[in-house]
Amino acid sequence: MKVTVLGLGLMGTALAKALLRNGHETTVWNRSAGKTVEGAVHARTPAAAVAASDLVVVCLSVYENVQEVLTEASGALAGRTIVNLTNGTPRQARDMAERVTGFGADYLDGGIMAVPPMIGGPEALILYSGSRHAFDAHHGTLEALAAPRFMGEDTGLAALYDLALLSAMYGMFGGYYHAIAMIRTEKITAAEFTPMVSAWLTAMMAGLPLAAQQIDSGDHRTEVSSIANNSAGFPNLINASRDQGVGTELLDPVHRLIDRASAEGHDTDALTRLVDLIQTP
Amino acid sequence: MKVTVLGLGLMGTALAKALLRNGHETTVWNRSAGKTVEGAVHARTPAAAVAASDLVVVCLSVYENVQEVLTEASGALAGRTIVNLTNGTPRQARDMAERVTGFGADYLDGGIMAVPPMIGGPEALILYSGSRHAFDAHHGTLEALAAPRFMGEDTGLAALYDLALLSAMYGMFGGYYHAIAMIRTEKITAAEFTPMVSAWLTAMMAGLPLAAQQIDSGDHRTEVSSIANNSAGFPNLINASRDQGVGTELLDPVHRLIDRASAEGHDTDALTRLVDLIQTP
Ligand SMILES: NC(=O)c1ccc[n+]([C@@H]2O[C@H](COP(=O)([O-])OP(=O)(O)OC[C@H]3O[C@@H](n4cnc5c(N)ncnc54)[C@H](OP(=O)(O)O)[C@@H]3O)[C@@H](O)[C@H]2O)c1
Ligand SMILES: NC(=O)c1ccc[n+]([C@@H]2O[C@H](COP(=O)([O-])OP(=O)(O)OC[C@H]3O[C@@H](n4cnc5c(N)ncnc54)[C@H](OP(=O)(O)O)[C@@H]3O)[C@@H](O)[C@H]2O)c1
Repeated sequence: MKVTVLGLGLMGTALAKALLRNGHETTVWNRSAGKTVEGAVHARTPAAAVAASDLVVVCLSVYENVQEVLTEASGALAGRTIVNLTNGTPRQARDMAERVTGFGADYLDGGIMAVPPMIGGPEALILYSGSRHAFDAHHGTLEALAAPRFMGEDTGLAALYDLALLSAMYGMFGGYYHAIAMIRTEKITAAEFTPMVSAWLTAMMAGLPLAAQQIDSGDHRTEVSSIANNSAGFPNLINASRDQGVGTELLDPVHRLIDRASAEGHDTDALTRLVDLIQTP
Repeated sequence: MKVTVLGLGLMGTALAKALLRNGHETTVWNRSAGKTVEGAVHARTPAAAVAASDLVVVCLSVYENVQEVLTEASGALAGRTIVNLTNGTPRQARDMAERVTGFGADYLDGGIMAVPPMIGGPEALILYSGSRHAFDAHHGTLEALAAPRFMGEDTGLAALYDLALLSAMYGMFGGYYHAIAMIRTEKITAAEFTPMVSAWLTAMMAGLPLAAQQIDSGDHRTEVSSIANNSAGFPNLINASRDQGVGTELLDPVHRLIDRASAEGHDTDALTRLVDLIQTP
């Protein structure tokens, strides 16, 4: 298959290399010169790059870049399939679908659930939404990048899932960074401590299916750990952080939510009740 | 062995039951009457409970409760080993060690890395610090509760590790709750979504050993995902949350930290740089 990749950042480069490794005739384009991928044809303009292949994978920093580049290439879009793997919001994905199909192309939006070194490997996942036809037609080629998973014909769905997963990741990373900041005040290294974190988080993750049931059913009763328990214990976390000279900014929002849940009468509920208390903006 | 458990909350009850299951002669005491554990001897006062066994496990809500109860039982403490599994700060643990040893008892502090249903099971872990002698002497009995792990003779260490692990957990839960709040705006259930979260977090957790190396060495260079990349993408998370009517309070502190890292010149570093930027209180 012929495939074009627009954007040779960290991720675009990994995508192009994975396509080449799978024997696809790959054309690449990047805004600034000097970024090259061995074995690929380097196009001079976005239009030339789009003209070269039926399937065009786009991976730029943000949607504004995608709009700019595809506008420049708009004359070449008719009949092409655009697979946009640039991170964006559901709204941006839906708007882009309208714009791109207006130029006569088919549009598939994607969210990459992987970092560049994982691309083409067994752990990488890419979520897609939008044109079912485009997904089915190019499924085989897309498999070179990551396991492809179709989330629905609402073009915004891949972005929604992607951003939701990213928020879970940022939460986990934020908690981990706070934990490291605490332990290193006593000269414990992150390397020593991290296997304990992984084992502990894995054990706590085993409780998420039950948490999901509680959230879906609205029945938050618990015999395990209540809002009252967590509200009683949280000051230990805050006080110990202060004693060790570590700021609590990463923990404060969870603390506030727990204390608000308690104040609003949810003392006997599980922590899962917090989902309902996230403020409406 | 004879063992006493002070406190029959959710956790104390699980501890007493695990001891009984392992054939230990177990005496229990709880402040308010009506909480009972089948097969245990129920003592009338803390002093009577402490007098009944050489090994006394304490599991109350907070350290203030422990102080109250052990003061009441102070006449019976000489020669006993107190294993305090109540959640507290390193400072509280060190102070309690001084107080308890002042009454002629040996003191071991502990942090329970498990929820009550895990107690006595293969996944449960309890971290200990303080008296090495107490740990060695009672290791066999403590194994009935959870895998025992000795963190050091500084009595505060178990609490420090415990609270650091809890902060990682709260971060993960906070991120998960935000994620669920986002996806359920599109009628996706938590049950459908949660296996994806678990797989994704597990994949991201595989990167923590490398993150630990970067933090320990202070070399945060990355070919994977930079502060600049994360700073460029984070507004998508914020905008999409707002579009879906979900407040961003759980994500804002990570966002602020990323943008501050960028403003302070760390654009080419990995996210691990954030550990250094957590404010000093
Ligand atoms: N890296 C990751 O771990 C990761 C993981 C999942 C998803 N993603 C997503 O993948 C996308 C690309 O990320 P990346 O890591 O490859 O970022 P990157 O290394 O910073 O690369 C950004 C790319 O966008 C191009 N670009 C920026 N502004 C442009 C403009 N105005 N016109 C044309 N091209 C422009 C850059 O071209 P120049 O070379 O000319 O600057 C470069 O090709 C982002 O949406 C990101 O969220 C990344
Ligand atoms: N549940 C968990 O998932 C979990 C996990 C790890 C660690 N922990 C830690 O284990 C400890 C106990 O938690 P839990 O879940 O068992 O809490 P809980 O169910 O709320 O039980 C609290 C216990 O403390 C007693 N208590 C409270 N105030 C007292 C006072 N002034 N004097 C005497 N006794 C008092 C209570 O007695 P009454 O019955 O008279 O109220 C009850 O026995 C906490 O430090 C907690 O952080 C819990």
